[in-house]
Amino acid sequence: MDEDKQLLEKMKLRILRSFRWKEDVITPLASELEITNEEFEKILMNHLDMSGLEALHATLESARPKCIAEKLHADLRLCWLCDVMEIITVEESNRIKTNLVNDIINGKKYSDALEIGKKQVLDLLLIE
Amino acid sequence: MDEDKQLLEKMKLRILRSFRWKEDVITPLASELEITNEEFEKILMNHLDMSGLEALHATLESARPKCIAEKLHADLRLCWLCDVMEIITVEESNRIKTNLVNDIINGKKYSDALEIGKKQVLDLLLIE
Repeated sequence: MDEDKQLLEKMKLRILRSFRWKEDVITPLASELEITNEEFEKILMNHLDMSGLEALHATLESARPKCIAEKLHADLRLCWLCDVMEIITVEESNRIKTNLVNDIINGKKYSDALEIGKKQVLDLLLIE
Repeated sequence: MDEDKQLLEKMKLRILRSFRWKEDVITPLASELEITNEEFEKILMNHLDMSGLEALHATLESARPKCIAEKLHADLRLCWLCDVMEIITVEESNRIKTNLVNDIINGKKYSDALEIGKKQVLDLLLIE
């Protein structure tokens, strides 16, 4: 029983320490919550069983663009500029976000992409 | 004609410099875009006519909770923790955000509210 438990923990850890998880979930979320990667791994192991972890592993890839786009939407203040004030169109907003999401997925740092996004939004606003 | 135009600009500026606009829109967005309040006022005056500005004035109040909640959702990484991994329930996520939105609307600084939110999220995750 104890051996089974240990094996299970080992298998869970192997998933959590895979590149995709570490890069996208563990490292950024642990840093955001101001805890260590190890503490966050422990939280996830407590909350998710093996099948949950495996299922998640598959959805991570598809969730990533959506979550990055949502963060960009908030950080570029598109809720105000696009959704409320409508001085940036939905098409322009999506175009900017889609390009930046691709850049980020291809390795660009989020903060660098955000800076570029701000410039693109400002350029759009300055066209009279 | 020139006098009419001047009067219109004056009326537009009066709206843009009202407390609600300045506090919620002009100051944070100008700072985000790294331009002065005056430059951002100019952008808005170019993009919105008088009726647009007046209509917006009315919707700002109702848009504010939504835009703040969206920013909190992104900054608390609830896209990952709630929407994707489901280790924070939708109810818990909404409860945390609703309370923080109210605090922010009642004057709490966004960054202070975010810190409290992170602690609340972490506390929830630490319950096994």
